[in-house]
Amino acid sequence: MSIVVVGTVAFDKIETPFDRTERILGGAATYIGLAASQFAENVNLVSVIGGDFPEEYISLLRNNHINLDGLQVKPEGKSFYWSGRYHADMNSRDTLVTELNVLADFEPILPESYQSPEFLVLGNLTPRVQLRVLEQLKRRPRLIVMDTMNFWMDTAWDELLSVIAKVDVLTVNDGEARQLTGEYSLVKAAQKILTMGPKFLVIKKGEHGALLFNKESVFFAPALPLEEVFDPTGAGDTFAGGFIGHLARTKDISFDNLKNAIIYGSAMASFAVEKFGTEGLVGLTHQMIDERVRLFVDLVQFDISLVSK
Amino acid sequence: MSIVVVGTVAFDKIETPFDRTERILGGAATYIGLAASQFAENVNLVSVIGGDFPEEYISLLRNNHINLDGLQVKPEGKSFYWSGRYHADMNSRDTLVTELNVLADFEPILPESYQSPEFLVLGNLTPRVQLRVLEQLKRRPRLIVMDTMNFWMDTAWDELLSVIAKVDVLTVNDGEARQLTGEYSLVKAAQKILTMGPKFLVIKKGEHGALLFNKESVFFAPALPLEEVFDPTGAGDTFAGGFIGHLARTKDISFDNLKNAIIYGSAMASFAVEKFGTEGLVGLTHQMIDERVRLFVDLVQFDISLVSK
Repeated sequence: MSIVVVGTVAFDKIETPFDRTERILGGAATYIGLAASQFAENVNLVSVIGGDFPEEYISLLRNNHINLDGLQVKPEGKSFYWSGRYHADMNSRDTLVTELNVLADFEPILPESYQSPEFLVLGNLTPRVQLRVLEQLKRRPRLIVMDTMNFWMDTAWDELLSVIAKVDVLTVNDGEARQLTGEYSLVKAAQKILTMGPKFLVIKKGEHGALLFNKESVFFAPALPLEEVFDPTGAGDTFAGGFIGHLARTKDISFDNLKNAIIYGSAMASFAVEKFGTEGLVGLTHQMIDERVRLFVDLVQFDISLVSK
Repeated sequence: MSIVVVGTVAFDKIETPFDRTERILGGAATYIGLAASQFAENVNLVSVIGGDFPEEYISLLRNNHINLDGLQVKPEGKSFYWSGRYHADMNSRDTLVTELNVLADFEPILPESYQSPEFLVLGNLTPRVQLRVLEQLKRRPRLIVMDTMNFWMDTAWDELLSVIAKVDVLTVNDGEARQLTGEYSLVKAAQKILTMGPKFLVIKKGEHGALLFNKESVFFAPALPLEEVFDPTGAGDTFAGGFIGHLARTKDISFDNLKNAIIYGSAMASFAVEKFGTEGLVGLTHQMIDERVRLFVDLVQFDISLVSK
C-alpha cells in the first residue's frame, strides 16, 4: 500500500529546561515519514530542502525506506529552519526563530509514481501547497489525512476550509478545534467539523491523549504516562505517521481499525518524546512497538460487572 | 458493607459563565455520600452543620439512605459556606467567599455504630480532623480512602503527612501530586507518594480523566466527553463516592476491581457536572449508571492485532 506524505523537511534547534540541541533533523514530513515507514514499505515524501541540507540526513531517510523522488533540492537555497524553547511543563513553547527559506515559494511536484497513492497525508503546511498536491492526483486516494494549525486559521481561512472540505481525516489539537468552530465543548466542535467535509476527526491533546470522532461515535486514547519527556517536538506528526502506517499495513479504514491506528500513533509518539528530535524513531523494531502497544492495552483495559445485573 | 464518610456539608453559591445559583446544598461529604449511596446501603456521614441548615437538605440526604447519626447540628452556629466563580474554560475557578463557621472548631465524634466500618472515606478537611476520626476507630477498616488539597500542603504539612502515612488510597489532583513530591512527572510523583504510606494513588485530572497507580501498575480512565459541562463543583468528591461505593458493593479491593471503581467514579462524576450542585446525582437508577458505564467501555475499548505477528 503506497503512502504519499507532504510536509516540511527542516532544521530544528530545540531548547528544553534540561538540555538543548544544535540544528538537527526535523520537519513534519520527516516525522510522519519515519513513523509511517515502520509499518508500510512504500512511503513517498514530497518536500523541499536547500543546498545546506546534510547528506547524512538524506541517508537517514533513505535507510528508513522513504522514497525521496518527490524531495526537491534547491542548491542555492537554505532549508526551512525552526527554533523553539519549551517551558518547564514541556507542554507549551515559544518559537524563537522561523526561517521559511526554500519553503516560502515551494511548489510541490508529484512525480508520476506518486500520483495514485492509496493513502495521502497532507502534513501541516500552507493550505495552498496542500491544494496543489490534491490537484495533481490522478485518482482519489482511499484515505486523505490532513494536519493543520492555528496559524492558517489566522492567515488563510478560505483556502484552509477548501482543503478541509476535500479530506477524510482532519487532525488538530484541542485549541485549534475550538478556534475552527467557535465551540468550547470538544464534542460540539467535533460535530461541527464533521459537517465541513471530513468523515473522521482526530483531536490531539498532547500529554492528555487523543480523541477520534465520527458522526456516531467517539474513541479516546491516552498518552502513555512517561517518567521523562525529553522533547515533544514532532509528537503530533509522529502520531499521524503511526496512524497512517497502521492503516496502510492493515488495509482497513473502518472506525474500529481507526481506533487501533490511534493506539499505534500514540505508541509511536511515546517513542518520539523520549529522545531529542527524531532519535527515538530510529532503530525501532516491530517487537518494541508491540511491547509499547501492550502497555496501552494494560493502561486502559478493564473488565466490568454492571451494577444493575 | 458499611462506609463511613467524613467531610463537609455546606452551602455553595456557584457562578459559571452560563448561570449562577443562590446558596445550594454542597460539601465534600454530601457529594461523596450521595454518590456512594447509589451502590451501598450502609453509608454513614460524619460532619457538622449550623442551625441555618434547611430541613429540606437533611431530608434529601436521608431519602438517599444516608445515615446522619454522625452529623452534628450546632443550633447557634452557621453552616460552612463557599462561593466560587468558574472561568470560561470551566476548568479553573476563583473562590469568592469561604466562611468556615461551625467547621472552624469541628471535633468529629463517631457514634458507636460508626466505629468499625468496612470502608472509610476521609473527605477533604483539615488533617487534624481526619486524624481525630482515625483515632476513634475500634478496628482498622478494610480500606481507607483520603482526599486532600494543596491548602493543607501549604498550612499543615506535618499533620498531612501523618494522615497520608495511615491510609490505603490517596486521591489528589495533578498539581497536588506535583506539590506533594516536587516531581513534575506524574509517574515519578506517583512512585514517591507510594513510599509515603498509601498502597494506591488516584491522580484526578478533571476533564482529562484520572490515573490509578500502585507500585507495579498504572491504569487510566478518561472523563466522558460531554456536550455541556454545567458545574464542575463536587466532581472529584462524586468520583470518590462512586469509587468507594463500587468497592463496598463488590467487596473486592484488588487492583483490577479498583480499575472498575475508577470507571464507576468517573461515570458518577459525569452525572454530577451535567447539572448544578447535587441535582445530577438525584433520581439516578442503576440502569442509568450502567448505560453511562457502557459509554466508557465504548470510549476506550479497542481490539488490536499486533504488528509483529
